[in-house]
Amino acid sequence: MEVLKERILKEGKYLGGGILKVDSFINHQVDAQLTMLLGREFARRFGYLKPTKVLTAEISGIAPALATAFALDVPLLYARKTRPITMPEDAYREVAPSHTKGKVIELLVSPEFLGPEERVLIIDDFLASGQTIMALVRIVQKAGATLVGIGAAIEKAFEGGRELLEPLGVPIESLVVIERFEDGKIIFQEP
Amino acid sequence: MEVLKERILKEGKYLGGGILKVDSFINHQVDAQLTMLLGREFARRFGYLKPTKVLTAEISGIAPALATAFALDVPLLYARKTRPITMPEDAYREVAPSHTKGKVIELLVSPEFLGPEERVLIIDDFLASGQTIMALVRIVQKAGATLVGIGAAIEKAFEGGRELLEPLGVPIESLVVIERFEDGKIIFQEP
Repeated sequence: MEVLKERILKEGKYLGGGILKVDSFINHQVDAQLTMLLGREFARRFGYLKPTKVLTAEISGIAPALATAFALDVPLLYARKTRPITMPEDAYREVAPSHTKGKVIELLVSPEFLGPEERVLIIDDFLASGQTIMALVRIVQKAGATLVGIGAAIEKAFEGGRELLEPLGVPIESLVVIERFEDGKIIFQEP
Repeated sequence: MEVLKERILKEGKYLGGGILKVDSFINHQVDAQLTMLLGREFARRFGYLKPTKVLTAEISGIAPALATAFALDVPLLYARKTRPITMPEDAYREVAPSHTKGKVIELLVSPEFLGPEERVLIIDDFLASGQTIMALVRIVQKAGATLVGIGAAIEKAFEGGRELLEPLGVPIESLVVIERFEDGKIIFQEP
């Protein structure tokens, strides 16, 4: 997706250690117009699979997933990382290692909103190691729901996430794919 | 806002202790179409103040604040509760007591995205005690930016937030106001 690629080249900063800083438009400050465009693009790519729900993980997945849910006209469901007092105790619970946070994160989804009848599209801001998305997939499986696809705004191809997720046999779509960082420069994968 | 009132009456559950469960459409599952309507309504009410940025706190403020930022065609900025490795160490930092979490929460905003030239509209899902919003206000003040207004989707009038915020002298708009809970029923404030 050219508009996202250009924005990453303009404002993204490579901090070393595989970390790309995009917090001027993705995950601290958020470009609302761009986000809605990302959502429309995800809807264009996944609409034929007739998802009934978009699932993401708080926090930075919420904006692109909301935009996608809006474009698809389905609800958004975001996994919580801490259990709010309004969540039943029998919530689906999975854990994932987070290499950017250096610890294990917990993901919780209430069974009230995820049942066997759902066709679930998972959307996140990044596809890196794929561990967070895999934890969401396990929640979808526990609920007996159908996973129909996985979308990420930015994929870091060198972190192995796609290889982890491909055996699931569903379409995986990233709007831009970063092949590698080289001398602090961002090298995109050419289609 | 009638459509939000009806939804709360249909799906909101009063759990006691002043806690209203709205996680089927606001803060776990999110009704994307409704959220965009909330954003449009906030934009209608605050547009004349010419905000240049919408500020909220992660997590549940993100959806309504993104919708508002989109409708106003300005960026969204959400305060983080933990410092990501991409955030500079001199970030603005304020704390607020959270009665639903029973602890103190930290709010962090990078000075990169909040300067004296900004006209800031604060948007959140709930206005209850007002403590979280007040912490955001202190961040706006630290940055030397101008606070132009405060909007919340749902106000719980009996928790004193409005009284706390009114001395700031900016418009405070809630899309629905709950006056009290009575025998488990939700009583809205009539305009």
